Amino acid sequence: MDPRELGLPSAVASPESDDVPAEVTIWEVGPRDGLQNESGIVPLDVKLEFLERLAVAGLPVVETTSFVHPEWVPQLADAVELFGELRRADGVRYPVLVPNSRGLDRALESGVDDIAIFASATETFTRRNLNRGLDEQFVMFDPVVRHAVAEGLNVRGYVSMVFGDPWEGPVAVDQVVSVGQRLLDMGCSQISLGDTIGVATPGHVETVIRAFVAAGVPLHRLAVHFHDTYGQALGNTYAALRLGVSTVDASAGGLGGCPYAGSATGNLATEDLVWMLEGLGIRHGVDLRSLADTSVWMAEHLGKPSPSAVVKALAR
Amino acid sequence: MDPRELGLPSAVASPESDDVPAEVTIWEVGPRDGLQNESGIVPLDVKLEFLERLAVAGLPVVETTSFVHPEWVPQLADAVELFGELRRADGVRYPVLVPNSRGLDRALESGVDDIAIFASATETFTRRNLNRGLDEQFVMFDPVVRHAVAEGLNVRGYVSMVFGDPWEGPVAVDQVVSVGQRLLDMGCSQISLGDTIGVATPGHVETVIRAFVAAGVPLHRLAVHFHDTYGQALGNTYAALRLGVSTVDASAGGLGGCPYAGSATGNLATEDLVWMLEGLGIRHGVDLRSLADTSVWMAEHLGKPSPSAVVKALAR
Repeated sequence: MDPRELGLPSAVASPESDDVPAEVTIWEVGPRDGLQNESGIVPLDVKLEFLERLAVAGLPVVETTSFVHPEWVPQLADAVELFGELRRADGVRYPVLVPNSRGLDRALESGVDDIAIFASATETFTRRNLNRGLDEQFVMFDPVVRHAVAEGLNVRGYVSMVFGDPWEGPVAVDQVVSVGQRLLDMGCSQISLGDTIGVATPGHVETVIRAFVAAGVPLHRLAVHFHDTYGQALGNTYAALRLGVSTVDASAGGLGGCPYAGSATGNLATEDLVWMLEGLGIRHGVDLRSLADTSVWMAEHLGKPSPSAVVKALAR
Repeated sequence: MDPRELGLPSAVASPESDDVPAEVTIWEVGPRDGLQNESGIVPLDVKLEFLERLAVAGLPVVETTSFVHPEWVPQLADAVELFGELRRADGVRYPVLVPNSRGLDRALESGVDDIAIFASATETFTRRNLNRGLDEQFVMFDPVVRHAVAEGLNVRGYVSMVFGDPWEGPVAVDQVVSVGQRLLDMGCSQISLGDTIGVATPGHVETVIRAFVAAGVPLHRLAVHFHDTYGQALGNTYAALRLGVSTVDASAGGLGGCPYAGSATGNLATEDLVWMLEGLGIRHGVDLRSLADTSVWMAEHLGKPSPSAVVKALAR
């Protein structure tokens, strides 16, 4: 028997298995965070098929697009049309990123149920990304979140540069907790702690998560979002799981990064995450073969191979 | 400040830091395990420079070559000449792989101090690799190890296919512990638990290590050897460190794999390991820049880029 034919590792429990959650929600960011970094515009019908295939593969949350101004991210300029044509699968959530009140208005007109806002843990990145200071970002986000919540939408808050900033270097944990708490207090149901430049290591991850827990933030309100720039994404994820975090962001085939941070490479590949969850005996609901086939299909459209180790291994 | 200019992440301690060892010995396998998978023969002077650069970069153990029959592994057919011309750096160990008594004789003539033997945890792989059964391998290794120990050599035992076998599938933990214990009882000072096909996940790693500890094997007699076929190598390493394992095998630039197991891709890249150890505040003694420069230099000789995430990121 060739275990690769199974497409999955054997689940082997250990005493440490008691620490990890029984079930993890994979927050798929490929169609938004992944595609927004692709310079060649992906046609609308390919995006729609990508979204459909991700839902068929069992992903419970598929971040669909971003309602930014079309000139900011040309790849996602078709957001309204895309969301209008999207056939939403039962039981799947389709959040969209909104940058401001205008984006929220477009999202509400499109019938969106879930939105995400993109905040930063550092002054420099806030200035570069939003053209305003660390504190000023809350002034901008506050009416957006309140309006969305009043309309019955679920709101997620991304916190970028949590583990390091390419201009400022290390980021104080207190500052990260303060930013995260302000987003939660504002009405975000969950915050996603982003290692935008991929510099985190497991002890740092544990420190940040423990700081949020010490500040009274329940674990279900935390998600982790790792980039594999230095190969650390999956080790960091394991550290977060061991502390009870149960929402993990990942990108099908490892698509994507961050267009405003030059050093960023791909997000954690969903397939590599699924392999680890399967081995840990953690429920995730994803059909790995179907997902990997989807990533191979998308890689062909993009004209470059998937960086996911699992996708490459299964394709051999 | 750009943290990438430092070439290292900030070390951030967490309560979990108490679990990991204060110092880790990196057992560098690039010149042997890495190069033996390269089809193009690397010239002797390039190998000698590779070994010298690895020692200069601070690696405490550099597995140098294999005293196999020259026809088995043409890349390492220059073992005797290589070891003869090697200028050994003070404080660095230069183990060589020996397959049998004849290999040991050649190693002894060459003035080797450290050897390693390559055993398997599964019947099928033993038959394919050594052309004999699981139990018969001990009959072959026993006189080699005893002779080496009598000559004052240090002997390491590799155990391959610990976490899965491409023909047999899952491997019973009891069988792994039995094979490992027989190697230790025979006189091996340490055994290296090899995930030859890269299928392990962290809970499986913990289970195997705990089984050895339960059987009375001290942690310093265990090393881990992960392959990154499914992207799991560094997460698995973190799981092993958390249980107190303090010897980790890695290959500069991620060179290598296993020539007899078709599915194997590269070993854990030493640079990616160093990045994690640095972030965990674990002493390792390696100059990451010097090591990454060496991997870039070797990649140029081999005519293909290093698969290490850290090497790629630092080169940008």
